[in-house]
Amino acid sequence: MRQYFHRRAVLKALFTSVASTIILSKSRALAQGDPLPSWRDGKAKQSILDFVATVTREGSPGFVPVSQRVATFDNDGTLWCEQPMYVQVAFALDQVKARASEHPEWKKKQPFKAVLDGDMKALAATGERGLVEIIMATHADMSTDDFERVVMDWLSKARQPRFKRPYTDCVYKPMLELMTYLRANGFRTYIVSGGGIEFMRPWTERVYGIPPAQVVGSSIKTKFMLRRDIPILLRLPQVNFVDDGPGKPVGINEHIGQRPIAAFGNSDGDLQMLQWTTKGAATPCFALIVHHTDGEREYAYDRQSHVGRLDKALDAAKINNWTVVSMKDDWARIFPFE
Amino acid sequence: MRQYFHRRAVLKALFTSVASTIILSKSRALAQGDPLPSWRDGKAKQSILDFVATVTREGSPGFVPVSQRVATFDNDGTLWCEQPMYVQVAFALDQVKARASEHPEWKKKQPFKAVLDGDMKALAATGERGLVEIIMATHADMSTDDFERVVMDWLSKARQPRFKRPYTDCVYKPMLELMTYLRANGFRTYIVSGGGIEFMRPWTERVYGIPPAQVVGSSIKTKFMLRRDIPILLRLPQVNFVDDGPGKPVGINEHIGQRPIAAFGNSDGDLQMLQWTTKGAATPCFALIVHHTDGEREYAYDRQSHVGRLDKALDAAKINNWTVVSMKDDWARIFPFE
Repeated sequence: MRQYFHRRAVLKALFTSVASTIILSKSRALAQGDPLPSWRDGKAKQSILDFVATVTREGSPGFVPVSQRVATFDNDGTLWCEQPMYVQVAFALDQVKARASEHPEWKKKQPFKAVLDGDMKALAATGERGLVEIIMATHADMSTDDFERVVMDWLSKARQPRFKRPYTDCVYKPMLELMTYLRANGFRTYIVSGGGIEFMRPWTERVYGIPPAQVVGSSIKTKFMLRRDIPILLRLPQVNFVDDGPGKPVGINEHIGQRPIAAFGNSDGDLQMLQWTTKGAATPCFALIVHHTDGEREYAYDRQSHVGRLDKALDAAKINNWTVVSMKDDWARIFPFE
Repeated sequence: MRQYFHRRAVLKALFTSVASTIILSKSRALAQGDPLPSWRDGKAKQSILDFVATVTREGSPGFVPVSQRVATFDNDGTLWCEQPMYVQVAFALDQVKARASEHPEWKKKQPFKAVLDGDMKALAATGERGLVEIIMATHADMSTDDFERVVMDWLSKARQPRFKRPYTDCVYKPMLELMTYLRANGFRTYIVSGGGIEFMRPWTERVYGIPPAQVVGSSIKTKFMLRRDIPILLRLPQVNFVDDGPGKPVGINEHIGQRPIAAFGNSDGDLQMLQWTTKGAATPCFALIVHHTDGEREYAYDRQSHVGRLDKALDAAKINNWTVVSMKDDWARIFPFE
């Protein structure tokens, strides 16, 4: 009888082991399904799958160790919608309105007057200088903690004007899948954006799965000080770093300290990041441009666009054999809410 | 007979499973031994063990999720020996000598003349300005890739003058154990040093287990350019960021985007990092100062020291109840080569 029970125990142990093997294989099979379901089959999708297969195949000449699998993503127009204006500009304009009562002088002073009057033509006439003035007036003279609260408060209420949804809903589902797929294959995913580093960090982990330390962006200077014996970092109205165009490789080098082997952008502001990633690389590398071709489901724009101008980078893509994604043709779905 | 083999297979499967359980338990038991064998029992060691136990005990009021377990370490004097001079200064002086033939004018021009003459008194007389001039002359006007090669080449040949060993051997074993222990408990470990970020990154992974992206330091400006169609970052002779004193919280915020919950330093240059980590913190937090008290095994210095001055930070440690490590009393071993 004891032996019988012993055998039963042995069989039970074996059965449990076999059962869990079956369950494991099943979940592996599921995981091995299409990792990019929002991408239509075609050259763009295949180029991604081929690249990942190449760098992860151990023992093959194209194999890249996990420590070197760095992928960088532009944000505006690459991960989320940048039309009809950059989200951070919409934020700054709303902040001018919200804080107008503290600044009665703004009623008569450009570029603030234009914002308060809703006169976009007059605002445009103030040029980049006007925009910088608005950014400084709305992004500085508060602690980093206070700024984070202002950003999160605004994001919870503001709505993208066409889709009538929070801006953080207007992110591209195919790119979310792509980041998840890369991470599952040992990549570290970084944002490298011309947008403000502190404007993005409070929400990138929740929305993209990218933690604060993996966000690179433009910044203003900050100053350490004690306020009632509690340390704060005060945001100063001085530009610290512009993480755009030739600034992107500089920001990548400073923050990551390694060259990416894959980079993703959508405009001329990403050209140098894509060059830095691919030209003269010692390992297989990959560059991709998201081309906004779908005026029905999103916005269609490129060479002539004021926001997200795609001109030199599109020419470079042809010469360098970078992948160009047509949102209209290559993406079965654009937004998660569709 | 078939059944016999079947039973043998079952028993073998079970045996393998039991055996691997035993092996696992053994390695767990080993891992549960003293994680800090080079630390003598005492207040300092106990304060570390207590802090880690507090923040990792799930369900307890002091529990801190893994995503927030950030620990920052100064480098010079905290992780490796900074006497008789900062390693990076020794590097710069050697580079002046190595490159003197390309700069015949240096024979007559201070501060270079003093370096070439070996006249440390005349060099000291040129002050911080002289040092900056030497740093710029030896750290700039080359690509980031070339600079990395120069650093690694120098480190392979240079020897710490007292211990006659490579500088990267003269690291503190108790701190290596501490970093390993923290990482095993879900911490991300960062270097936050006044030293050059690009001077450290080529070797911190091998020596400390800290990858390039987790190194924060001082920097000079770089510029993206194409050289024969290959992108490079050219190092410019202009200060970009000084990651020392009040610069450390600024650097931490810029690179990590989170407040550390533990910070480790050894001098007044670390004061603001320790304040930023502990004062007004929302979770349990920890600050530690390595006090160089062992003139026999290493160097003894503090309030009067030119390198590694420990004055205000030592006073602050008393007021704020930070842990102060006496190298003489608290560390059973200092260097791995002992």
